[in-house]
Amino acid sequence: MIISGGFKETGRESAQLEKDVVSTARKYGIRIIGPNCIGVLDTRSGLDSFFQPHDRMIRPSAGGVSFITQSGTVGCTLLEWAAEQGVGISKFASYGNRCDVDEGDLVEYFSMDDDTEIVVIYIEGLSNGRKLFEAASRISKKKPVVVLKAGATQLGSVAARSHTGALGGPQPVALAAFEQAGMIVAHNVEELFDIVKALAKQPMPICEGVVMVTNGAGPVVMAADKFEEYGVEIAKLSKPTLEALRKELPPYCYISETTIDLTGSATSKDYETALRIAAKDDSVGLLASFFVFQDPPLDEGILRVMPEILKLGKPVLCCASGGPYTRKQVGVLENQTVPVYETGERLATAAHALMTIRDLQSKQ
Amino acid sequence: MIISGGFKETGRESAQLEKDVVSTARKYGIRIIGPNCIGVLDTRSGLDSFFQPHDRMIRPSAGGVSFITQSGTVGCTLLEWAAEQGVGISKFASYGNRCDVDEGDLVEYFSMDDDTEIVVIYIEGLSNGRKLFEAASRISKKKPVVVLKAGATQLGSVAARSHTGALGGPQPVALAAFEQAGMIVAHNVEELFDIVKALAKQPMPICEGVVMVTNGAGPVVMAADKFEEYGVEIAKLSKPTLEALRKELPPYCYISETTIDLTGSATSKDYETALRIAAKDDSVGLLASFFVFQDPPLDEGILRVMPEILKLGKPVLCCASGGPYTRKQVGVLENQTVPVYETGERLATAAHALMTIRDLQSKQ
Repeated sequence: MIISGGFKETGRESAQLEKDVVSTARKYGIRIIGPNCIGVLDTRSGLDSFFQPHDRMIRPSAGGVSFITQSGTVGCTLLEWAAEQGVGISKFASYGNRCDVDEGDLVEYFSMDDDTEIVVIYIEGLSNGRKLFEAASRISKKKPVVVLKAGATQLGSVAARSHTGALGGPQPVALAAFEQAGMIVAHNVEELFDIVKALAKQPMPICEGVVMVTNGAGPVVMAADKFEEYGVEIAKLSKPTLEALRKELPPYCYISETTIDLTGSATSKDYETALRIAAKDDSVGLLASFFVFQDPPLDEGILRVMPEILKLGKPVLCCASGGPYTRKQVGVLENQTVPVYETGERLATAAHALMTIRDLQSKQ
Repeated sequence: MIISGGFKETGRESAQLEKDVVSTARKYGIRIIGPNCIGVLDTRSGLDSFFQPHDRMIRPSAGGVSFITQSGTVGCTLLEWAAEQGVGISKFASYGNRCDVDEGDLVEYFSMDDDTEIVVIYIEGLSNGRKLFEAASRISKKKPVVVLKAGATQLGSVAARSHTGALGGPQPVALAAFEQAGMIVAHNVEELFDIVKALAKQPMPICEGVVMVTNGAGPVVMAADKFEEYGVEIAKLSKPTLEALRKELPPYCYISETTIDLTGSATSKDYETALRIAAKDDSVGLLASFFVFQDPPLDEGILRVMPEILKLGKPVLCCASGGPYTRKQVGVLENQTVPVYETGERLATAAHALMTIRDLQSKQ
C-alpha cells in the first residue's frame, strides 16, 4: 500500500518512478494499492491505514457495505457520513493512481468476500473498463453495485488527470456500460450515499407502489415530481384500505389513493395508524414517511412507532429536515435503521434505486 | 392572517367557505394571508405567527433575505437552515391557499421594503402568473429573486392541488417566464438555499473566472464537471501569477492555470499564500476553496486566514464535508460569512448563480 503522492499525477518523470515501482513489485509477485491514496480500512480486523487522526475523522462501525474509491477525499466524506448515519462498513479501499490493483480487481475481491453485501464505487477514470464491466456483471447478480463516475466533462477530465493521472474517457459510453453490467448509477456524492443508505438499512420491496404519509405536504409535492420523472410507480390504495383509513384517522386528514396527509395536527398515533393500514395494502411496495418534527403535536412517540412499522417487512424511507430538534429525532431514527433524507427529492432518488435493484434481481 | 387549514384544499364545500371569507374581507377592505399556512415572521419587529415552538424550530437572526413560500413545511426547513448557517432574514411570508395576498403582491411589497435585499420564492402553482411576472421583472433589476417551482409533473400537480389547492400549470412555460423576468431558477430545495447563502454572504464577482484551491482533489473534479455543464468560465491564471505561486508554495503542489492543488500536506499558510496570490490575478472573479479538514497539517489557523481573504473583495465559496470535526470548522467559517458547501457540485451551482446574477445586473 503506497499512500504518498508524487507519482504519475505530478508529471512525466514521476510517472517513470511509478512504472519502476510496479515492475519491481511484479518481479517479486507483490500487488500494490495506490500510490496517492489513503489506503485501506477493514472494520472487522481493525486494519486502518488512514493518516486522518480519529479526532479529525470518525470511523464507521462494522456492516455490509464495501467502498472502492479513487479519491481519498470523497472516501473520507462517505466514511464519516456512514459513521454518523448508522451505515455499517465492511471494507474500504482507496486506490488513487491505481498503478496495479484496480476497481476490477477490487470488485472481484468483494464478490468473494462474505462480509460484503453491497459494493460502492467512486471512479474518475477507467484504466481497464472491460475488466470492471465483467467483474461487475458477475457480482451484480448477487450483490448490488452502486457507482458514481466523475470526470464527465472535458474540464472534469483534466482535473481528474492532474488528480490521479486518470483519463476520463467518454462518459455516456461508461454509464451505458455500467447500467448494462447491472450497476446502479448515481449522479453526485450525496445521491451515491443516499442510495447506499437505503440499500444498507432496508429490505428490498416485494412489489412496486410507493405510498406517502405526511404532516406537511411541501416535500411530498417535490417527491411526487421526482417519482414521475423516474417512472417510479405510486401506490393505488384499495377501497377497503381507504375506508379503514377514513374510519381510523381524524376527519380533517386528507386521504387519497397515493398520499395520506395527516396535516400539521398529526400525532405519532396517527402515523402509526396510517402506516400500519397502508402497509397491508397489496399495491404498496414501499412506505415513504415525511415528518415535520417542528410541528406539535407530533412527538417523540414516533421513535417508538417506527421500529414497529419496520417489523411489518416493507421498506420504509423517511424525510425530515430542519435544525437541532429535528436532527436529534433523525439521529435516533437512523440508529433504528430507518433511513432519513433531508428532502423529498432525495427520498425519491433512494426509492427509485430500491425499485431498480428489485427489477434487476427479479430478472435473474 | 389565517393559519388553519380546512378550506379549498379539502374539497368543494370548504372552497365555498374560503370564498365567503374572501368576499366578506373585501367588503371591509381587509387583506388576507393564508389560509392553510404558518403565517409571517418579521425578524426586526419580532412579529412571529408560527405555531412551531422555539424548542422545536430555531429562528434566524435579522438580515437581508425575505422568503415567500406556499408551503409552510419548506419554509420551516429554509428558516432553520438560515439560522444555523448564518443567513440573516428580513421577512418571511407563508401564504398557503393564497385566497387573497399572492406571490405577486408579496414580491411588489418586498421591492419597496428597504430591509429586503434578496427575494426567495417557493411556489407550487401560480394563480396570477402575469402579476408575478411583472412584479418580478421590476424588482429583479434592483434585487436578486431566486425561485423554486414544485408541482412540475402531473403527479406533482395533483399533490400540490390537495396540498394548497393550487393548479400546477405547464412547468416549461413557468420556468421560461421566470427567467425572462430575471429570476434565478433553482431546481430543488437544497439548491434554492445554496444559492441564497452565496448571495446573502458574498459580494458579486466583478468578472468571470473561477479558480479552485484544494488539499484533496476529488470534489474539484466534480465541481469542474458542473462548471463545464453550466458554462461557467474557469480562470486562466497569468504567467506572473503561476510564477509567484511556484515560488511561494512547496514544490510538491500541483499548480495549473485553473487549479491549485496544495495536496494533503497543505497548511493554513499554504492556503493563505495560494488564495492571496490567486485573488490578485485579473482572470479570477471568484475563489473556490476546497478543504479536507480531516487532513492534517491543515489546522484551525485557516479560521484566521479566511476573514483576511474576504477583505480582498472577491467572492469566496468553500467546500467541506464530513463529521463532527469538519462541522465545527464549517460552523465558524459560516459565522465569518464564508459560505461552505458539502459537495463540489453544490459549490458549482452557487458559483453559477452568482455569475448569472452578475450577467443580469451588468445588462441593466
